[in-house]
Parts: sequence; structure tokens; C-alpha cells
Amino acid sequence: FCTFLLVPLMYQPTLISLVVLLFTLSNIVYGGKILIYPMDGSHWVNMRVIIEELHSKGHDITVVRASNSWYIKENSPHYTTITIPNTGGFDENFFGEFILSKHLKIQREQGKSFWTELKLQSSMKETFFEFHKNMAEMITRVLEDRKLIQSLQDAKFDLVLTDPGIGGGTILARVLHLPLVYNVRWTIQGEAHLVIAPSPLSYVPYTATELTDKMTFLQRVTNVLAYILGSYTLTSITEPNYKPIVQRYFGPDVDYNAFFQEADIWLMRSDFVFEFPKPTMPNMVYIGGFQCKPSKPLPQDLEEFVQSSSEHGVVMMTLGTLVAELPEDIADEIAAAFAQLPQKVIWRYTGQRPSTLGKNTLLVDWLPQNDLLGHPKTRAFVAHGGTNGVQEAIYHGVPVVGLPLAFDQSDNLSKLKERGAANTVDIVTMDRNVFLESLKAVLHEPSYRENMQRLSRLHRDQPIKPLDKAVFWIEFVMRHKGARHLRTESYKMSWIVYHSVDVIATLLMCGLLVTLVCLAGVRCVWRKVFCRNKVKSE
Amino acid sequence: FCTFLLVPLMYQPTLISLVVLLFTLSNIVYGGKILIYPMDGSHWVNMRVIIEELHSKGHDITVVRASNSWYIKENSPHYTTITIPNTGGFDENFFGEFILSKHLKIQREQGKSFWTELKLQSSMKETFFEFHKNMAEMITRVLEDRKLIQSLQDAKFDLVLTDPGIGGGTILARVLHLPLVYNVRWTIQGEAHLVIAPSPLSYVPYTATELTDKMTFLQRVTNVLAYILGSYTLTSITEPNYKPIVQRYFGPDVDYNAFFQEADIWLMRSDFVFEFPKPTMPNMVYIGGFQCKPSKPLPQDLEEFVQSSSEHGVVMMTLGTLVAELPEDIADEIAAAFAQLPQKVIWRYTGQRPSTLGKNTLLVDWLPQNDLLGHPKTRAFVAHGGTNGVQEAIYHGVPVVGLPLAFDQSDNLSKLKERGAANTVDIVTMDRNVFLESLKAVLHEPSYRENMQRLSRLHRDQPIKPLDKAVFWIEFVMRHKGARHLRTESYKMSWIVYHSVDVIATLLMCGLLVTLVCLAGVRCVWRKVFCRNKVKSE
Repeated sequence: FCTFLLVPLMYQPTLISLVVLLFTLSNIVYGGKILIYPMDGSHWVNMRVIIEELHSKGHDITVVRASNSWYIKENSPHYTTITIPNTGGFDENFFGEFILSKHLKIQREQGKSFWTELKLQSSMKETFFEFHKNMAEMITRVLEDRKLIQSLQDAKFDLVLTDPGIGGGTILARVLHLPLVYNVRWTIQGEAHLVIAPSPLSYVPYTATELTDKMTFLQRVTNVLAYILGSYTLTSITEPNYKPIVQRYFGPDVDYNAFFQEADIWLMRSDFVFEFPKPTMPNMVYIGGFQCKPSKPLPQDLEEFVQSSSEHGVVMMTLGTLVAELPEDIADEIAAAFAQLPQKVIWRYTGQRPSTLGKNTLLVDWLPQNDLLGHPKTRAFVAHGGTNGVQEAIYHGVPVVGLPLAFDQSDNLSKLKERGAANTVDIVTMDRNVFLESLKAVLHEPSYRENMQRLSRLHRDQPIKPLDKAVFWIEFVMRHKGARHLRTESYKMSWIVYHSVDVIATLLMCGLLVTLVCLAGVRCVWRKVFCRNKVKSE
Repeated sequence: FCTFLLVPLMYQPTLISLVVLLFTLSNIVYGGKILIYPMDGSHWVNMRVIIEELHSKGHDITVVRASNSWYIKENSPHYTTITIPNTGGFDENFFGEFILSKHLKIQREQGKSFWTELKLQSSMKETFFEFHKNMAEMITRVLEDRKLIQSLQDAKFDLVLTDPGIGGGTILARVLHLPLVYNVRWTIQGEAHLVIAPSPLSYVPYTATELTDKMTFLQRVTNVLAYILGSYTLTSITEPNYKPIVQRYFGPDVDYNAFFQEADIWLMRSDFVFEFPKPTMPNMVYIGGFQCKPSKPLPQDLEEFVQSSSEHGVVMMTLGTLVAELPEDIADEIAAAFAQLPQKVIWRYTGQRPSTLGKNTLLVDWLPQNDLLGHPKTRAFVAHGGTNGVQEAIYHGVPVVGLPLAFDQSDNLSKLKERGAANTVDIVTMDRNVFLESLKAVLHEPSYRENMQRLSRLHRDQPIKPLDKAVFWIEFVMRHKGARHLRTESYKMSWIVYHSVDVIATLLMCGLLVTLVCLAGVRCVWRKVFCRNKVKSE
């Protein structure tokens, strides 16, 4: 093909230079080599959207995956894979098991109390510790495979794109001396804003507190305590796993925190329609809702079911990638409530058929979430409150009834609730009546839908689409071999220097010294005058 | 025309609804009514670029101007004006006079010293106080004219766009209860970042310190002191002028600082190619360099002069809108240095022809700055360091020899210097040799041009053009009647609440109390044990 092109061009120098120019340009824009170190599960669902878009732009993508990976398939038309054998990874059951067999069980058996909360925290800590131990093991295996590292070095990648919810991608990027882009909401050190941007705890609520940006004094106290406890817990989960690796490969003097914060661009999977407004950084790019797209037509059988709802419309329910079953009695209560609705219900549920299931409810193994959310007949979305689902609900303007299970889910839902676009129900303590009331409110009070539609309008009104923004900044980093001019000095500084504690202490000391010298002077003068007067008066 | 359209449409209901839809859409995007309360001088040059763009999009623009306005003309095809009679405003001579007859004169007569610096500060303070007094008088006249206010209310504007370097626009927007957009680099309370975004003084240099984002301990001390002094000075300049007006019209309890910070969108006239990276806010939009555009061909005589420079190229010099003359001896030194260059020189200079002027130097009353900067023969830009000129130099990638005169100019130039893209010379102490050396360095060392070209590439590589961004966000605020979801709670908070001082104090007190109670307990137990032992041993 090339020879075919060159023959006529040999006689046309202008055309040749044009082709050379186009080729150079296409090399700048296209043909980048990207190494992806993803996180599995719902985080991978997101990453895959970006990968497919990058692939469609002509980039060459390589993905590092664990041999027992749950979601990351070995064969794809969009990327090639490097499979790390015999690694813990995390599989189908890891977090699902945790939610159902531990988290929910503890709550149901022990009721709501301070001690239950402690037990939940400790069980969550255990699970996350194991998770990060596995992730640390995986990157260790990568680093120990000298042949693999050599081949990665030889491949001359342009950048590493990773999810800093695990530590491996950052470590690998540093080993390979490559520019680094984060596809991020959580880092191993906490929520991304809290980690990298100044986040005054007076109006930036700490993760999972369900607080808003308007807090009373007591709420602010809670927020500060949550921050202290949360930071301590996170450190005790991730530091023991990743710090030894960092110190082994980069020397004992490397600042562990700075190491994980030194990325060129942070592609934030959120925006300020979803998040409360808070300070941000020049290298944070908001791509929240980048996975959302207009809905496609439903499969025929589903469309027929939806249309059979006539003017009442449809309610859809799914509890995300992790949970497709529920304890029998909870499922019964949910089914019984659904049975009393005039709406049709589509419920992703793989457990045993609840005995109370109404004729209006269709159980499915899987549902086309985006297409259903975008269907004009969809009236409400019963969801667990994962970030993806919440963002898609915002995009399509469908109000939510939340059944939060674990992690950040109740916090995500509380953000919708604060804007009057969602109701939440405690899945442990609720019965059919409570759930039904909550459903009815969202279905019948127009404010829920109106508020969600307002959020939808705000979210969709952006100068460029979030996914295009993500691709632009990834390509930007490739074009300029980094984005150092957007990275502040903050993350390298010690706490004392960052907050100018040393400067303020020095200035106070100087102030004190000057005051003391002045006082001594005054005293001296006073004494002289006083003594002279005394002498005179004598 | 409408009737003509309607006849065939009457029979086509689908087309009718399409036209209605298009009409509705065009009403959302077009036809906004915008009230502009600008700042005069170089700030107006910027504002006019946005106004012309908004006008071309079909918006209806009204500009408030002083009767003695310097730059803001009464008749324009792009906007209608409201002229406020008999106001001080600021005219051709106001700041130019200050620079030449006060600022430069003091420095030349007194030499460099601490006392000179104090004198300069005090003279600057005086000038700015007078300026803000005039501006406060102007807005008072507007507010006192009940007929004018009524007509502004009746006009039903969609938003106020203002430069918060003066206080009038904010006050007027609040009186009219309108959404507010700032076209901003300086506010009456200081540099915009420092006012609204968290700005740790450990790596965010205070205005006009010429410090960078990497500071030694002593530089950090300087920075904190500069911040304290600067904030005090600014408050003492603007508060006496604007606070009485705010309190008179909005009640004595209105928080003066919050009042001026409550804008929907801050269109920042800078970006992070120019500024050092620092924290930012969700409602800050970076439009730095929005006025820059590809160069147009030069007028024929100028083009001929430029071409006559052959391979040596051209040096251009201008000291901005305020200063087109210089003291005779300084002009002689500059001209003498220029005369020794093989390059041709184009110099905007309206003073008396310097006796040392070389044949290679062309004096002009005015020069097409953008077109000359974009000319391939232009080798260096001798500039005073105003933001506009610096941004245009970055856009066109032309290295700079800086002759800072006053205000933020040396600070702007220091940012280029830090990136190796400019040299600066002290106009007061320099002679022809110093100036010539500086010119030669920029002309002959390739690093200056390379660094400036790198800045240019970074600046131009944006997903949307800065001017389009500005228009998008202005229209966004009109579409959604504000942008509250992007405005943090920070500016409303007192210092104590914002920094959680009350919470930390409470937690420390509780900690202390618990410790004391524990100690008391231990002491009690100790005593009992000790006493029992004593009794036993006795």
C-alpha cells in the first residue's frame, strides 16, 4: 500500500511534504502506546469505556490483568493483555461475599448500635486489608519478573493509565519512568480531593459521613473525627502492603505519600453536579458520567413488557455488579411492595423467586441499565447507590430509591437526597410498608423527578463531553510527555512546611523578642525617671 | 417574512413543531440581555473582545461608562451605553501620570533603598485610593439615580458581567438581583486566587513578590509578611470607599468580603502556562490569552520595513497603553542600544526623538502588536510586562526583554524569567550596555526562544479556545439563571469556622478533660494502694 502511494508521489515534492506532515501529525495524535493497570470489578467497567474510545482513536493498548480476573477478559479486539499468573486478584465472590455474608449479616444479627458499627468497620478493614495484600502481591510478581519488565521497557510506552484505588499502576509507571494518568475517584490514600486538593473540613464532608457542605457545629466535629479515624484506618490498611515495595524499589528515603500523589493528570470520575463544590487542582479533570450515553432501543420482549405498563410506567431495580441476590426475607419484603404498585417492575435478581412476587414484576439475570434508564416510560430507579448507577440516573434524569449496602453507597445517595432527587431506605430494618411508602413518594411527588431533571440538565450542559475530555488529556500527556506545569508543589511538602508552621512560629518568636526588648527598654527608662524623681523628691 | 414562512407551515404540523423547537432553542442560546460594568484602560481592551464575541452570538449588550471615559467609546455597533455624568472615572493621564511623574521619578531621585520602597508604596496607595474613591462615586451616582435604576430593572437583564478590579459592578448586580459573572484577574480584595481559592503561602507566591512556587525558608517568611502587609494595604484602600455603600444599600450586617466574592462564575484572565500551578475552585474558568489570535498581514510600509531586516529579523518595543513616552536620558540609552543591533527595531514611542536613535529603528505612534508578534521575522519583544502583552508573547512564542514599570509587571515578567523565556532590566538603573547585553542574550541564546515556543505549544493545546470557553460559561449562567452548584460555601464562613478552629479547640479541651479525669483516677487508685500498703507496712 505504501509503495503504491509513493510511486505517484515521487514526482510531486509538495505532495510528499504534505504526506510527511500528515504522517508526523498523525504520529502526534495517533499511534500512542498506552499501558493500562486497571482495578477489577465496577472500576474496570469504567476503564473499558475509556479504553474502547482510545482504541477507536488509533492508540495501541496493553492491559495488565490477574490470571483469575473477574471482569477483565484475556481476549479483546480493543487491547492486548499481560496476564500475571497465580495472583489473588479479586474475583466474582470477593466483595459480593463480603457484603452479603459479612456486612449485611452482622447488621441483621446485631441490630443497630455503636458496637455493630465497630464490628462492621473491623470486618471492612479486614476485607480491604486482604484486597490490598493481593494487589501488592500482584505488582510484586510483575516487578520480580525481570523478563516482563525488560519487555515493558522495550515496548516504549507513552504513558501509564491506572486506577489509583490500587497501588500497582503507580509503582509500575515509576519503574518504567513513564508519564502517569489516573482514572480516579478513590486512591489508596482516600477520596481524591481529600488527598490532593486543599479540603477544609469546615465545608468538605469526609467520605461516607453523609454530611453536606453546610454543617452545624456538631456535624463539623463529627467530620473532623471521621477524618482522623478514616485517615488512620486507611493508612493502616494500605501502608503495610505497599510501603515495603516502594522502599525496596525506590530507596528508603522516598516519601510514600508523595510517591502515590505524583501523577500528571487526575481524571476524576465525578463532577460538581454530583459532588458538593469544593477546591480543586489544575491537574484534576472532571469526567463524571463519561460512561453515559443516549439509550438504544430495548430487546423486543423487554420493550413489550415496558409498553404493557401503559400510563403507569416502569420501575427498575438493580443492586450493581456485586449483589444479584438477597436474603430471602428481604427479597420477600421488596417483592411484596412491588406487587402493590400499578407500575410494571424490572428487577435484576438471580436468587430464589420470592414467594410474594407480583404479576407486575419481571425478574431478570441482567438488564440493559443505560437503555432502560433512558426509556421514556421509566419512572424510578431502585439502586444500591454505586457511583456509576448514580451518574447514569443523573444523566437520564430518573429519580432514585436507594437501598445502600456498603462502602460509599449511602454517601452517594445522600448527595442526591440533599438535592431532593432521591429517597433512601435502610435495607436491614425496612419492611414492605416502609419500602412501598418510599417508592410511592418518588413516583408521585413531582419534585423528585423535577430535581433530577434539573441535575440532568446541568450535567449535560458542558462545553465538551466528559469522555472527549478524558481522551484529550490522555493525548495531551502523550504529546507533551507529561503535564508538569499543572502539578502543584503541595504534595512534596511536609505538613509543617505546607501549613507554614515554621514561618508562623519564627514570626511569633521575633514578635515576642521585639516586645520583650521594648518592655525592657520601657522598664529601664521608667526606672531612671522614677529613681531621678525619687532622688529629686528626697 | 414570518407570515411568508407560516403559510406553507400551516399544513405541516411536524414542521411547525420543528420551527417552534428551533425558536425555543434559539431563545435559550441567543437573545440574552447582558449588562456590562467594565473597568477602563487595558482592562477594557480585554472586556471589549468578549463583548464583540457575545454580540456576534446575538446577545444584546449594554455598557455602563463614565462621561470622561478614556477607552470606552459612547458609540459602538456592538453595544449601547449608559453614560454616568460628572464622574472622576480614570482618564488618559491618571495611571500614566502616576508611573512617569511619581513612580519613576521617586526611584530616579532617591535611588534604590528601603525608604524609596516605602515612598513608592505610599504613593501607589494614594493613587489607588483616589481611583477607588472615583469608582465608588460613580456607582453611588448610578444608585442615586432612581430613574436609571428603574429603567435597568425594567430592562430585565439576564446577567451582569463586570471586572471586580472595581466594586461597582458587584453592587449593581446585587441591587438588580441578577446573576453575576466576573471577568477577572484582580479583585478589589486582591489577586483572584488568593481571594477565593485556598492558597497555601508555602507554595503560592503573594502578588508582586516575584517569588516562585519553590521557596526557601526566608522566601516563605517574605511571602507571609508580604501577604499580611498587602492584605492590610488593600483593605485600607478599598474598604473606606465601598463598605459605606454596601452597608447603606444592603444593611449594616452584610459581610463586606462575602458580598464581593459571591459571583457565579469567575472568568480568570490567566492560565497555568502563565501562572504557577495552585489550587482553584469549581467556578473558576481559565480564559488566559482569550484575546490572542493568529496574526493578520501588516500594513504595506511596515511589512516593507520588516522585510528589509533580511535574516536578522525584527525587535519590537512597546510599554503598553499607559506609557508611550520616557524621560529623555532613558530613551537615549534605549535608542543607543537598539542602534548597535543588526536587527531592525519598531518602537512605539511618542516622546521627543532620542538623539542616539539609529537608522535601524522606526518610531511609531501605534503598532499592530498582535500582527507583529505573529510575524515570522519578529525575534524579540521589549515589553513592560502587562498581562495582555505577556499572554500575547506566549501565544506567539516570542521571547521577551522586560522593562517593568509598576504594578504587577515585574511579577508577570518574573514568571516568564523562571521558565527561561525572558530577561528583565531595571529601567531606572540600566544604561545602554546593560540593556544591549540583555537584548543580545535573548536574541542569540536559543534557549529563550525554545522555552517560549514550549509555553506557546502548551498554551495553544486546549480542548476549546479560551474565548469560546468564556462565552460558553456566560451563556451557561444565562441558561440556568446562575451557577450556584459550582459555588463553594467557603466565602461565607468566618475565619474561625473556615479553619475549624472552634472544632479543634473543643476537641483539644475534651482531650484535656479526659486526660485530667484519667490522671485523677490514677492518682486516686495510687493513693488507695499506697495508703493501704502504708497501713499494711505499719
